[in-house]
Amino acid sequence: MAQFNCLTFLTDYGLEDAFVAVCHAVASQVAPDLRITDITHLIPLGDIRRGAAVLGQAVPYFPPAVHVAVVDPGVGTARRGVAVEAGGSLFVGPDNGLLSVAIAVAGGATRAVSLTNKALWRETTAATFHGRDIFMPVAARLAAGLPLDEAGDRVEVTSLVTLPPPECRITGDGARVEVVTVDGFGNVQLSLPGADAPRAGLTPGKTVTLAWDGGELAVPFVTTFGEVAPGEPLCYRDGGDWVAIAVAGGDAARRFGLRAGTRMTLIVT
Amino acid sequence: MAQFNCLTFLTDYGLEDAFVAVCHAVASQVAPDLRITDITHLIPLGDIRRGAAVLGQAVPYFPPAVHVAVVDPGVGTARRGVAVEAGGSLFVGPDNGLLSVAIAVAGGATRAVSLTNKALWRETTAATFHGRDIFMPVAARLAAGLPLDEAGDRVEVTSLVTLPPPECRITGDGARVEVVTVDGFGNVQLSLPGADAPRAGLTPGKTVTLAWDGGELAVPFVTTFGEVAPGEPLCYRDGGDWVAIAVAGGDAARRFGLRAGTRMTLIVT
Amino acid sequence: MAQFNCLTFLTDYGLEDAFVAVCHAVASQVAPDLRITDITHLIPLGDIRRGAAVLGQAVPYFPPAVHVAVVDPGVGTARRGVAVEAGGSLFVGPDNGLLSVAIAVAGGATRAVSLTNKALWRETTAATFHGRDIFMPVAARLAAGLPLDEAGDRVEVTSLVTLPPPECRITGDGARVEVVTVDGFGNVQLSLPGADAPRAGLTPGKTVTLAWDGGELAVPFVTTFGEVAPGEPLCYRDGGDWVAIAVAGGDAARRFGLRAGTRMTLIVT
Repeated sequence: MAQFNCLTFLTDYGLEDAFVAVCHAVASQVAPDLRITDITHLIPLGDIRRGAAVLGQAVPYFPPAVHVAVVDPGVGTARRGVAVEAGGSLFVGPDNGLLSVAIAVAGGATRAVSLTNKALWRETTAATFHGRDIFMPVAARLAAGLPLDEAGDRVEVTSLVTLPPPECRITGDGARVEVVTVDGFGNVQLSLPGADAPRAGLTPGKTVTLAWDGGELAVPFVTTFGEVAPGEPLCYRDGGDWVAIAVAGGDAARRFGLRAGTRMTLIVT
Repeated sequence: MAQFNCLTFLTDYGLEDAFVAVCHAVASQVAPDLRITDITHLIPLGDIRRGAAVLGQAVPYFPPAVHVAVVDPGVGTARRGVAVEAGGSLFVGPDNGLLSVAIAVAGGATRAVSLTNKALWRETTAATFHGRDIFMPVAARLAAGLPLDEAGDRVEVTSLVTLPPPECRITGDGARVEVVTVDGFGNVQLSLPGADAPRAGLTPGKTVTLAWDGGELAVPFVTTFGEVAPGEPLCYRDGGDWVAIAVAGGDAARRFGLRAGTRMTLIVT
Repeated sequence: MAQFNCLTFLTDYGLEDAFVAVCHAVASQVAPDLRITDITHLIPLGDIRRGAAVLGQAVPYFPPAVHVAVVDPGVGTARRGVAVEAGGSLFVGPDNGLLSVAIAVAGGATRAVSLTNKALWRETTAATFHGRDIFMPVAARLAAGLPLDEAGDRVEVTSLVTLPPPECRITGDGARVEVVTVDGFGNVQLSLPGADAPRAGLTPGKTVTLAWDGGELAVPFVTTFGEVAPGEPLCYRDGGDWVAIAVAGGDAARRFGLRAGTRMTLIVT
């Protein structure tokens, strides 16, 4: 495995403490010239599904990199730490599904190891801070050119924990979908790829009726927020090219009570 | 135009998503050695005026740089994207006034282009994410030495959208001013340059009576917060050398109901 | 003093303004190749004790570095600015106790100067922004190899302001301790080093009764959060190896009304 110049870092550590900086420091001591890009550290505490969605959306824009992600409510328990090769990049973190969306986006896992080589860990390892003590030092060594197999024992890629893919079924007059994630503005990303929108009848100018347990809403399918009045809801293809629901200048998730996992029927008229 | 080693980035993207990191990744792929400094990504959503004020305050401290700013409620509509040369630096973003304060601070626009050269954009361009798909890749190429004129069609600098300058009129016994911006601590920056404070009668030891629609307040004009008791209001020359109002250890904007655009009379006694 | 490749930065400046970026810009102009790592800028405004705790927890993970910290409610008053040598690193900031915990962690101060050499400051110095105008430019020059003594007049290390160490007294059946700090998740770090936990009777499987003015609580002493049910409180050795109190998936500080300085008796049964 060649060297990587880029390491990305995503966690639920927050920005109020030194946790993120300490991980940067650990990586820099192993690989001083490594460029570290923080994806975000504001994943809600323990929200693996949200972390997986954000990581999956970021990865396609990076060159081959070592992606370290830590949203790890099971830290210190029996869950494995893993390093996984996919699409020319490496993914390092807990084996709890967090990495699975990004690995799928990158083309699927080709090799994986359990991080069992303790010689690569920090000398003392806190039970609650594997980001600092295991994932970051191992990832930095991998970035510096350490062969993947030296990080630990090979495991079957089929044994990796994978989040269940959200429902997405195109019907005669629309689709049956699920809310995948809600961004910091309250924009609601659905499980329908933008490329499949036309097949579901979603073309600019159409009206979509959204129905979910607790609400119903008819919104225009548009290209940009500017096409509706401020405060009005809309349906569009978002920056990651997924069909999404938003409110111009507002927070759609809060206004309509939507969150990750909400199932929804789209009917185009 | 020579190469730039420094690119700055200011947006209203927030820190909860991968939006900022994805823009960094796009720039790094174009110009791997470019140093990117984030100014802030916590401009309130769509608040062009606040974005313009913060950018204008930051720019003087940077070496010649490419400054990318994106607060863009009209993304995807007819508003132009522009790159503007001013004071040896380049300013890249939507032509909605966001860049105008910084351009004025830098000495005024000397050349400007509309970002019409689609060959520089990302291959697929989302209608709602021009930061990633247009502004960042173009800015990174400009930083790497691309001549400004290759980014698009030359436009008149007089055609650039400019925010109206806030009112500032020095009177016989004070000044008629406006709140320009409120920082994260609630300190209230007025449109009166610190250098003009003596001419308005504001010298240490004086008392200033502030009157606005909804309130009136007499405060001492001091040099440092330490000169008043905790919880007491004060008037001073702030870090950007503007006359400002604060509360020692408190939030002046919230306490007195002040915000950008509030007009105010200062009477010195 | 040799050059340093690493400068760290911790403040209470927040992330909404350009304050942090402007300090980066000032440092970069002095020392263009310097790597700057932000520890955090979300120390609560003026909370010297919290700033000192976070800095002290971060420093051990860095290589020799120049550590700049600014939590400075007395900015512009008579308090000194200092640069202090300790354990091969330099600590730069206000002499108000902020640096004292980290200096002690690094092995204690060996030399100190008051930052009196105005030739190193920015030309114009705002009374309220010494981070930009004094601490950062001086620190960047020190990182670039300037001898410590050229930054100002030598002062006795015994004259440096030091925060009182929190109470920690191991008793026959537990310990008398103090809350040192609360992290962003509400985990409560006590003044009892993890290494001393066994001596206080704290070993996995034991139950600890915590009593403080306003509350009492019996919790298990465990190794990882995963050993208790979600929502249950626990006592453990944290990532910095201090004894701490947490709630699995919750906020212990808020739930039990604990904050820095709360004194507490631990009785192990």
